[in-house]
Amino acid sequence: MNDARFIAADWGSSQLRLYLCDGSRVLDECSGPGIATARGGDHAGILTAAIAPWRQAHGTLPLRMAGMVGSRNGWIEVPYLECPADAAALRASLQRFHAQGLDVAIVPGLACTNPQGAPDVMRGEETQVFGALALQPALAEGRRVLALPGTHCKWVHLQDGRIQRFQTSFSGELFELLRRHSQLVVAAHDKPHDQAYDAEAFGFGLRRAQAAASLGHVLFEARSRQLREAMPAAAATDFLSGLVIGSDVRGALGLLGWQADGLEIGLVGAPTLCVRYAQALARQGYATASLDGAQCALAGLRTLTID
Amino acid sequence: MNDARFIAADWGSSQLRLYLCDGSRVLDECSGPGIATARGGDHAGILTAAIAPWRQAHGTLPLRMAGMVGSRNGWIEVPYLECPADAAALRASLQRFHAQGLDVAIVPGLACTNPQGAPDVMRGEETQVFGALALQPALAEGRRVLALPGTHCKWVHLQDGRIQRFQTSFSGELFELLRRHSQLVVAAHDKPHDQAYDAEAFGFGLRRAQAAASLGHVLFEARSRQLREAMPAAAATDFLSGLVIGSDVRGALGLLGWQADGLEIGLVGAPTLCVRYAQALARQGYATASLDGAQCALAGLRTLTID
Repeated sequence: MNDARFIAADWGSSQLRLYLCDGSRVLDECSGPGIATARGGDHAGILTAAIAPWRQAHGTLPLRMAGMVGSRNGWIEVPYLECPADAAALRASLQRFHAQGLDVAIVPGLACTNPQGAPDVMRGEETQVFGALALQPALAEGRRVLALPGTHCKWVHLQDGRIQRFQTSFSGELFELLRRHSQLVVAAHDKPHDQAYDAEAFGFGLRRAQAAASLGHVLFEARSRQLREAMPAAAATDFLSGLVIGSDVRGALGLLGWQADGLEIGLVGAPTLCVRYAQALARQGYATASLDGAQCALAGLRTLTID
Repeated sequence: MNDARFIAADWGSSQLRLYLCDGSRVLDECSGPGIATARGGDHAGILTAAIAPWRQAHGTLPLRMAGMVGSRNGWIEVPYLECPADAAALRASLQRFHAQGLDVAIVPGLACTNPQGAPDVMRGEETQVFGALALQPALAEGRRVLALPGTHCKWVHLQDGRIQRFQTSFSGELFELLRRHSQLVVAAHDKPHDQAYDAEAFGFGLRRAQAAASLGHVLFEARSRQLREAMPAAAATDFLSGLVIGSDVRGALGLLGWQADGLEIGLVGAPTLCVRYAQALARQGYATASLDGAQCALAGLRTLTID
């Protein structure tokens, strides 16, 4: 069974999370400094120190990574792979190297060119996508659409298990900027996007996003409705979330030219955030099925680098 | 000539600016703490201290104010006046009072109800609008559209000198949030919206905003074009400005159902910001004429509270 053991790393800008995995089971986990802190420093040393107890107990284990760690400001820049791309193409393009006795593989990000020559990129989400396909093999059949809500939501087109193209929307980061730094919602700073929400206020935001000409012209309603209609501040935050996610869903559907022809859309992300997207998509007539993003990330590393 | 003398106040959240005016001339100016600092404190005392030298030289002068000072978190809340509203209606609704020997008048803000019952509000811009009409009497004839770019851009419909309705767009604050706090443009934090700009990169942003389905799905290009097309960071900031202003102009034109029938759009704001809006509107076939927002504010206080 030792062959199935590996260490998975999620090295985000503010935190390093490491998982000791045995197949699909997580045996242990630990953390370290984010990639922004580590920039220009001794990445291998940080990793070696963090996993020292695991090495003592289990010997040398493969270290498998995806995401920011392979970006320009990460550890080692791993070139993007162009779409269309399937799991085999990613497996063939892993960046493999040894450093301070570590056996490392980093999954490359993906790039694609959208209509009118617009470039798009992802790093990390490709691993979640192929993890989702490993967990739900039916997703690898025919035409599929996955949405991966998060800081930047990725709308992914799959054909027979191959990522054809994808479109990034800025909704997660935008909502955080508006919630934390804007004049729209002053009193509700303590309620992040992925927590429990007021489905009615959120649904009202969805309806307004649908009716409005553009997001920029409807955002101020989160403020004016507090001033003129005594909308409570907490509800205004969920109303704002509805505006942003409603605009995301509406724009993505428009971009991709979909029709509500019984297509089920796969959601991969934090469960509490997927619930919001499911509500927004249901309003447009789409069924959804959600998978946990963190589980998909581990499954993706396993299927792309171990199995 | 003493009748024409007054003190105009622009009490923003971070700073109080006071102007000693004689008709249309500014004789002197000074500053004090912002309304956010003053909240719950001694507003009259702050003003009295700031203008003490002017009182010694000129005696008691009328103090005339508009904007945030009349908001819920300002000095005294002045109820919004409903649109349609003209200068006479604002003059009749001034909030007049005396405090610590100060002879104060505050111009009320305006409220309106846009399609689908969406409420909108402004405080301060109404004074700039009627200042613009005082400076350019032709604007009071027939159907006119003014745009007041700033933190929140107000698109104002005028009919024979009366504000019929208006629509707020969030573009100024949105751009500042993206420029200062987002992952889109990391290296160009020092270039605010109202400074000199790269008209070519900005124009590229305008074209992308026009082509894209929605703002949220095109914003990430400010990052992906740096990664994939070596777009310089400074150009990316102006590209981003083009995306935001292009989306604002496109959305406003869509909302208002305008046609490019030779309508000249008046721009009232910081000159360097008006230049960007003029470029964006010219792309849509609209001629523009710009007025300095600060001058319009003083002219507005004069025409609404003194003349």
